[in-house]
Amino acid sequence: MNSAELDQWTNYWLAVVEQALSSWISPQAPAGLGEAMRYAVLDGGKRLRPLLVLAAREAVAHGTKDDVLDEAALRAACAVELIHAYSLVHDDMPCMDNDLLRRGKLTVHAQFGEAQALLAGDALQALAFEFLTPDASTIPDTVQARLCRLLATSAGHAGMAGGQAIDLASVGMALSEDQLRQMHRLKTGALLEGSVMMGAACGNASPQALSGLKRYGEALGLAFQVVDDILDVIADSATLGKTAGKDAANDKPTYVSLLGLGKAKSYVQFLLQEALEALHSTGLTHTHTLAALAERVANRNT
Amino acid sequence: MNSAELDQWTNYWLAVVEQALSSWISPQAPAGLGEAMRYAVLDGGKRLRPLLVLAAREAVAHGTKDDVLDEAALRAACAVELIHAYSLVHDDMPCMDNDLLRRGKLTVHAQFGEAQALLAGDALQALAFEFLTPDASTIPDTVQARLCRLLATSAGHAGMAGGQAIDLASVGMALSEDQLRQMHRLKTGALLEGSVMMGAACGNASPQALSGLKRYGEALGLAFQVVDDILDVIADSATLGKTAGKDAANDKPTYVSLLGLGKAKSYVQFLLQEALEALHSTGLTHTHTLAALAERVANRNT
Repeated sequence: MNSAELDQWTNYWLAVVEQALSSWISPQAPAGLGEAMRYAVLDGGKRLRPLLVLAAREAVAHGTKDDVLDEAALRAACAVELIHAYSLVHDDMPCMDNDLLRRGKLTVHAQFGEAQALLAGDALQALAFEFLTPDASTIPDTVQARLCRLLATSAGHAGMAGGQAIDLASVGMALSEDQLRQMHRLKTGALLEGSVMMGAACGNASPQALSGLKRYGEALGLAFQVVDDILDVIADSATLGKTAGKDAANDKPTYVSLLGLGKAKSYVQFLLQEALEALHSTGLTHTHTLAALAERVANRNT
Repeated sequence: MNSAELDQWTNYWLAVVEQALSSWISPQAPAGLGEAMRYAVLDGGKRLRPLLVLAAREAVAHGTKDDVLDEAALRAACAVELIHAYSLVHDDMPCMDNDLLRRGKLTVHAQFGEAQALLAGDALQALAFEFLTPDASTIPDTVQARLCRLLATSAGHAGMAGGQAIDLASVGMALSEDQLRQMHRLKTGALLEGSVMMGAACGNASPQALSGLKRYGEALGLAFQVVDDILDVIADSATLGKTAGKDAANDKPTYVSLLGLGKAKSYVQFLLQEALEALHSTGLTHTHTLAALAERVANRNT
């Protein structure tokens, strides 16, 4: 799949995801909460996690046609984006990173106040699990339960939240490469890997395919973070849509501070190879979108 | 069921719930996160929500024996308590109620810092859904999915989080009785009612039984809140284990400020009657524990 084909695929699905998010996050939630929730999620972000869910569903579903599992995958794609969005809302708050700019606009607490930001984040996490368990739905209960399990595990203490706790504790500390990898594996990697596995859960993947997809998700998750560390050094705030140079300013350990810029860049290419090999090992024939997404992650400049 | 019998029932289940919570909330979560999560949940609280789950399971399961659904109910009981605990952690934070005392000890942010409190709350919410979807479990997927749906709905924008947003927006405002009821129906009532419905989901209740249990949960939830408002006025901080007189100090609308103390007390007894009538309407024969719990809620003094 070349870059133009990926753009076409991406644009199609971004529109579908945006439409679904907009119609499923009700503006009706009381006392301005719905407005804050929508502000946190809509009109912004690269939507990498939803795209991974949908590309993984495509890989495991090729040759089958199942509208119900397509709907499950779309719900999973939106649910995982809600978790990502809530984590950004909380992460930006004064007691955490204290950031005023995100995706080129004011952060949620800067716009709506800290208390509303806290609640909006909490409500978005709950809503993610509502997305996965729609009332009177035809999505098989097995799939609903598996999706909830994957999302909860990726988001919780052994995943994203745990990684954020390590991040918090590590400011100003010298970490080894192993410790840094462990932090990122949880903080960013768990939800990216979880996205791939949730897409795979919306189909009948063999154990071999699941194991390869897991390796792919892991390598891609780490690559994403190393690139993030690189961009924090070489890009400017306008391009990033968020404050650049933040890691160094906060004395945070990064792949760049640990390996140097040159080696960090080679490491990204190494991880990309690993992700592509892992796809090959799945035995699945339609992994070209997943492959193209990995290449885009490794070579992104925003 | 008399008071001594309820004590016996309660003591038995409190020990079971405490043991389960302690073994299921791992102290291993990284960078002190596990410690903060355990501190937020263990050794404290009346555990009313878990007891409601278990009493509702008892009511719908009478005459059947099913270890798997018993396990589901225990998991649901613990999950709902995690949601309650996380909401207290976030609610106590400086940007919300800014409270330093809870259950007679320092609040989580006072003990571990604001950032760790924020993360611990977030991780507890995710863990609740992990409790409901154990890996390789024999709990039917239908039950797992239904429990996730009930919990997410009770906790989210149309439940607890929505109620907190109304609460936040209503400080210093004159609310009508309808508006006050709506706020409490969401803020406290939704999760109490959800507890009853989650217990009922661990069995085969008829639509008639479900509808009666729902009415029971609604009345009990409201009674709980009216009593809370009364106790905030008449009890002292030492008895409550939290700061008394807070509502008036914060100029919050309450049932006492709206109805006066005497009418608020009669309203509690009215709601208790409503809860007991609703139980009668279920057609279930073993609702005596639910009835005794409602009486205890209405007549509690802490």
